[in-house]
Amino acid sequence: MSTVLGVEQPVLSSPPDVPGVSAAQRRSASLEEAIRRDPGRFRVLTGDRPTGRLHLGHYFGTLHNRVRLQNLGVEMFLVIADYQVLTDRDVADHLTEYVEGLVLDYLAVGIDPDRTTIFAHSAVPALNQLLLPFLSLVSTAELSRNPTVKDEIANSRQSSVSGLMFTYPAHQAADILFCKANLVPVGQDQLPHLEVTRTVARRFNDRYGSGAAVFPEPDALLSAAPLLLGTDGTKMSKSRGNAISLASSADETAKLIRGAKTDADRHITYDPVTRAEVSSLVLLAALCLNRDPHRVAEDIGAGGAAALKRTVTEAVNEYLAPMRARRARYAQERTYLRHILREGIGRANAVAESTLDEVRTAMNALY
Amino acid sequence: MSTVLGVEQPVLSSPPDVPGVSAAQRRSASLEEAIRRDPGRFRVLTGDRPTGRLHLGHYFGTLHNRVRLQNLGVEMFLVIADYQVLTDRDVADHLTEYVEGLVLDYLAVGIDPDRTTIFAHSAVPALNQLLLPFLSLVSTAELSRNPTVKDEIANSRQSSVSGLMFTYPAHQAADILFCKANLVPVGQDQLPHLEVTRTVARRFNDRYGSGAAVFPEPDALLSAAPLLLGTDGTKMSKSRGNAISLASSADETAKLIRGAKTDADRHITYDPVTRAEVSSLVLLAALCLNRDPHRVAEDIGAGGAAALKRTVTEAVNEYLAPMRARRARYAQERTYLRHILREGIGRANAVAESTLDEVRTAMNALY
Repeated sequence: MSTVLGVEQPVLSSPPDVPGVSAAQRRSASLEEAIRRDPGRFRVLTGDRPTGRLHLGHYFGTLHNRVRLQNLGVEMFLVIADYQVLTDRDVADHLTEYVEGLVLDYLAVGIDPDRTTIFAHSAVPALNQLLLPFLSLVSTAELSRNPTVKDEIANSRQSSVSGLMFTYPAHQAADILFCKANLVPVGQDQLPHLEVTRTVARRFNDRYGSGAAVFPEPDALLSAAPLLLGTDGTKMSKSRGNAISLASSADETAKLIRGAKTDADRHITYDPVTRAEVSSLVLLAALCLNRDPHRVAEDIGAGGAAALKRTVTEAVNEYLAPMRARRARYAQERTYLRHILREGIGRANAVAESTLDEVRTAMNALY
Repeated sequence: MSTVLGVEQPVLSSPPDVPGVSAAQRRSASLEEAIRRDPGRFRVLTGDRPTGRLHLGHYFGTLHNRVRLQNLGVEMFLVIADYQVLTDRDVADHLTEYVEGLVLDYLAVGIDPDRTTIFAHSAVPALNQLLLPFLSLVSTAELSRNPTVKDEIANSRQSSVSGLMFTYPAHQAADILFCKANLVPVGQDQLPHLEVTRTVARRFNDRYGSGAAVFPEPDALLSAAPLLLGTDGTKMSKSRGNAISLASSADETAKLIRGAKTDADRHITYDPVTRAEVSSLVLLAALCLNRDPHRVAEDIGAGGAAALKRTVTEAVNEYLAPMRARRARYAQERTYLRHILREGIGRANAVAESTLDEVRTAMNALY
């Protein structure tokens, strides 16, 4: 599971190699201020690729922030980016299951389908159609400069990159602009991802807007994502088996944490730079307990890894208990789940058709 | 005006440098036989970019053949490829006018909207959505091997090719496969154009078809397009002012032919290789008179260019007269024209939505 936009991998607070981060941080701080003043001015687009269950990395990286924004009164569209997983055969074979699992996870963490529109990308033809005019506004060179596409080209032979992957930044523009989202939560390493979307919005308005802006140029909302490692000390990831998923049982959680990598120093401290694994566990407990990680570490003191793990296990299981209960309840209600998704798809289609009508009118293509 | 698929530029009967032509010719002959036996088995997709009025090159290159196939009982879908002209600002500014002009030309030449579905590409979201799964089935290398894309890359700096142009072969696949067309009329130089469409159909069926073919692998139907030059002896083209458009008046036609390039030899013969300009005029008269061009030349004999031009003018004006009368009549009926287009768009949407449903079912993406 990786988020489409949002924090795929929790990052440190200020990687020095990403240009424009401090400006973006200042901008985000003033956006947060504006959200508190007038949440109704903002519409957020975010979402996930349906590749399996969400875990604590996703939760503290993005889900928690989404629920916060929703509860502040910001309108939100959550796209389940099912066309982005087509090339992964294992995923494609379980698409419905993964999509429904994602809806379950959303409901479990507190996404309210009355306020937030949950929809599957492939179920909204008018959104997909936007890809075509948008592709006319960007060059192949601009597409290949997108970090996701660049990585894909670097990781495979360029020639084997699929047309779908290559045009990914334009799909992203369609996902964001179909609902005229003006705010996209991103991690600091994801600032360049929004560039094609902003370019498309600007060029469309310049070319077809006749003075009026059809699309907003969406802003990036940086969220400070905590650095949580997997239980083996590497990046948290479902496929590595080192992630506590929201849907795990309390026992599975305890077992995973029991096996977590620590170090030989019995005295527990919070020092992410020199003691990454131990500090990640401390941080996890602190996040669940809503406490300062230094104080959590102090309280454990010389209790060693065993005490640390007991603290973490209790904190995580207690924190997740109400979400897990909700998840289990909804999991019994397949019909309701499908209803939620269909409702969201219906709303997304209405919004997309209205936007496409505006686009056709602006382009003088109404017959 | 250039045809999307069909004969953009009339070609000689057998250019030696196109591989597979003779096999394709044999295949086309047997397809023609099958069409005569059972036209109901075939569905044709063809169409045009709405860039202006159709001229005699289009007529004898493709329109005549379309009407023939329609009248044999083959079901036909005519796409007006409006998204393919977006990057041409002059065209984009007159889109509605050009699209309606195209419908007028179709009706004028004998396309019957009760039997043939005329629609605008941009008005069919479910067709456009097919682009996304189709893009997942082809690589960027395969896209760049398409002759249209290759030309575009050669003619501009590669980096300035738009994403829309680069993905053109996949749009073509969507245009053809949305209605499950199994037959696409092409000129001999266009055989390679169909390859991405055939690849997409095959790969989709292999990957998602579970034994059953969702899409046909469409066949190319070669049409022998006559070599008609513009009145200045170069390629016939609206923008060069050397083409007799279907909508021209008899006087405009006479004037254009009067100014046509010929040669100093008063004795008129039909010899396309050594007397290209004169032979093109002879051929034009012959096509309109439904006679052998050699006999037409013989009849003019020593009459020289003046007699040739009189013959051509009379033949063309007489041939086009009923079409021009129909065109003028329909041009008065804007409401009817729009009705025709909307009817076609409605039919195309119904077909596209049904195909997209099948695609979603095959891909296990029905929510």
